[in-house]
Amino acid sequence: MIFRHRAGNRIGKRTLNIGILTIGDELTNGRIRDANAPWIAARLYRMGWNIPVIMTVGDTAEAIGRAIDSLSSQCRAVIVTGGLGPTPDDITVEAVAKACGRRLIRNDLVLASLRERTEACGYRWTEGHRRQALIPEGADVIPNPVGSAWGFSLNHRGCLFIVLPGVPEEAERMVADQAIPLLKRITPVSPAFVASRTLKCFGMPESEMEERIRGLIPENGEVLAGFYPRFPEVHLVLTARHPRKAEAEENLRRVETAVSEILNPCLFGRDEETLEGIVGSLLTRKALTLAVAESCTGGLIADRLTDVPGSSLYLERGAVTYSNASKTALLDVPEAILAEFGAVSEPTARRMAEGIRNAAGVDLGLSTTGIAGPTGAVPGKPVGTVYIALASASGTICRHCLFHRDRRKVKVAAAHTALMMLREHLLSLP
Amino acid sequence: MIFRHRAGNRIGKRTLNIGILTIGDELTNGRIRDANAPWIAARLYRMGWNIPVIMTVGDTAEAIGRAIDSLSSQCRAVIVTGGLGPTPDDITVEAVAKACGRRLIRNDLVLASLRERTEACGYRWTEGHRRQALIPEGADVIPNPVGSAWGFSLNHRGCLFIVLPGVPEEAERMVADQAIPLLKRITPVSPAFVASRTLKCFGMPESEMEERIRGLIPENGEVLAGFYPRFPEVHLVLTARHPRKAEAEENLRRVETAVSEILNPCLFGRDEETLEGIVGSLLTRKALTLAVAESCTGGLIADRLTDVPGSSLYLERGAVTYSNASKTALLDVPEAILAEFGAVSEPTARRMAEGIRNAAGVDLGLSTTGIAGPTGAVPGKPVGTVYIALASASGTICRHCLFHRDRRKVKVAAAHTALMMLREHLLSLP
Repeated sequence: MIFRHRAGNRIGKRTLNIGILTIGDELTNGRIRDANAPWIAARLYRMGWNIPVIMTVGDTAEAIGRAIDSLSSQCRAVIVTGGLGPTPDDITVEAVAKACGRRLIRNDLVLASLRERTEACGYRWTEGHRRQALIPEGADVIPNPVGSAWGFSLNHRGCLFIVLPGVPEEAERMVADQAIPLLKRITPVSPAFVASRTLKCFGMPESEMEERIRGLIPENGEVLAGFYPRFPEVHLVLTARHPRKAEAEENLRRVETAVSEILNPCLFGRDEETLEGIVGSLLTRKALTLAVAESCTGGLIADRLTDVPGSSLYLERGAVTYSNASKTALLDVPEAILAEFGAVSEPTARRMAEGIRNAAGVDLGLSTTGIAGPTGAVPGKPVGTVYIALASASGTICRHCLFHRDRRKVKVAAAHTALMMLREHLLSLP
Repeated sequence: MIFRHRAGNRIGKRTLNIGILTIGDELTNGRIRDANAPWIAARLYRMGWNIPVIMTVGDTAEAIGRAIDSLSSQCRAVIVTGGLGPTPDDITVEAVAKACGRRLIRNDLVLASLRERTEACGYRWTEGHRRQALIPEGADVIPNPVGSAWGFSLNHRGCLFIVLPGVPEEAERMVADQAIPLLKRITPVSPAFVASRTLKCFGMPESEMEERIRGLIPENGEVLAGFYPRFPEVHLVLTARHPRKAEAEENLRRVETAVSEILNPCLFGRDEETLEGIVGSLLTRKALTLAVAESCTGGLIADRLTDVPGSSLYLERGAVTYSNASKTALLDVPEAILAEFGAVSEPTARRMAEGIRNAAGVDLGLSTTGIAGPTGAVPGKPVGTVYIALASASGTICRHCLFHRDRRKVKVAAAHTALMMLREHLLSLP
């Protein structure tokens, strides 16, 4: 939209161009895949800006200087991440100052916050920390709410450079809370309004999702659909761009409703929701308690459930029963069952769920038993075989799954499937 | 090393500089994470070349042209991927031809192979295929052994542009089999050999590590040190470059030995090793069994231990005792202890470790109890307070920690600290 009516207008175009520069030898050496640039690009794009170029350079003043020259000539602003740490290989501040012809001056605000933080953590105060308090003359500092390295913004040749730390969660937080408001202030035209929704799905391959919803995405491009696999989930991001807020939201709502209906069986959450968080709120709302008995998932289900603040209110206990002895001792699984059907079997899964439910005196018992691999396969039970059972007042259900994955992914997929079963059960209750 | 004797010699330096340019709107919109650049960068770096810059631009002739100008001025060669497909949004060939001032001419070799391929696959011959047979005048074609889009190489301003398709398996195959031999031919000096080692540390902040080892890193740059925080670990990567393999390895070995001694208390592993894997091999080697009782870590320790294949041989069970009732029932923690000292206390942590050790009949019992937050703090016990205990034949030890982090990170740091305690104990045994 916004591009059509400014076609050919270079200045006009440039005002919407935001560049991205990520800095680090670990990136140009290919030892690490850059997590910041794609995240930042997606975020800016969804807000209606253009990203004409993404650059990655190593920790050398020359490369950083070249990038700054090239980017300032084609962008209204540039988000820079990386190289703000306390060690000598972190040279971003010096390099940016040099490229922009500024001196480095100590910022007392940063210095004070660094001192406070190092003391709070009981760390020693080092020369490196003192270096982190230096910023280019004329720059405005950007506080770091989650880490030690502060960022800063600096105008150079009509281009605003917003320099942030490279640690992804710090960069993401500071882009969302501080960089984007700064960009909004300097963008003379309000970019197209962008309404977007992330639909989180599990249990349907990306290709099948795409095929099913294809007809529902308007040809005119007023709503775009992007697929982001986040194992074991697939996130479908719907983005509606329109100069007017109301239209963007209405277009999004229309497509989201149609798409949600089609994806319903595998669609479990939206935007920032997590599966464990959704299960947690359902348990709280229905005032039900839970206990988990894990064999092949090895504690992962309990770990995810306890990531939710307040989970102690509904999770009574978890048992990681890796040995047959512990299955008998903690879950009261009869040795006869283990002997006849084996530890990886439907009868064992059922007894585990019922056993933990009785032992813990809770409303719901959830269990997993399987073969995560790489070894342990037996005739008829290949690696990836998992039985998941849920015991409740209305009886016990059990699901047999086969995940063609490596050990960690079998655990992750099994834990996810178990939480989905729990969610479905809770939704089915009055 | 290889740079010193050519210091200041721009041409000399440039001869080892290989740039990377990836093209596609899906990359600049952040819808897809670039898989090609990191793979190509790692491959080139390991062979001794420098990658001064990686650029990513969208499918516009202007952006591609700018990138080609900027890259040709600082690199001896550039590997370009993406935008060679048959659809109208694939404009790389036209854009490169335009930027280099060449006409497009049909290549009969490409045309023939495309016809053959489409017939073999039973596809329809389309206008798009005919477009794919056009390459810039003066370019040499690069056959695609796995896909339809051929690549080409083209000299522009003394810089060799090697243009390849964006499909990762096609790009990787063509880089390995065709691009690298081309680069070797134009690189006048044999590239340096690179030896590198990753030292994985926990419990010492990056800035303090740097201060301690500073004097051990040679000034002449024959061994470089880079710090990479991977919460809760810090990875120190030592990289030695030398024209001769033996010298690179010897230089690395010398520095690694000295650095390892200094970092010893917090250095737990190297390269691909993981803390849970190291603990697992120690338990196996010493033929000891383990059980874990987790409160604040909520199953994370068991989850990490069971990520290691074969962990069922030493991990007998895990208990996630979130409620007081479960601490008493599964770990035999006296109600009097819980009442007098509270669930988050040293006496409780000790009884939990001893209780799981006895209940499971194992050699070692490991326990955690703490306040992960965000709520739950009590006077004298702020959020982040964690007690970790290890019970063994030689008695029980307990550590009190305070982590200034959010809920997830308190869990992660506590689990890591517990595994480090276990590791130290196992190393102390005869």
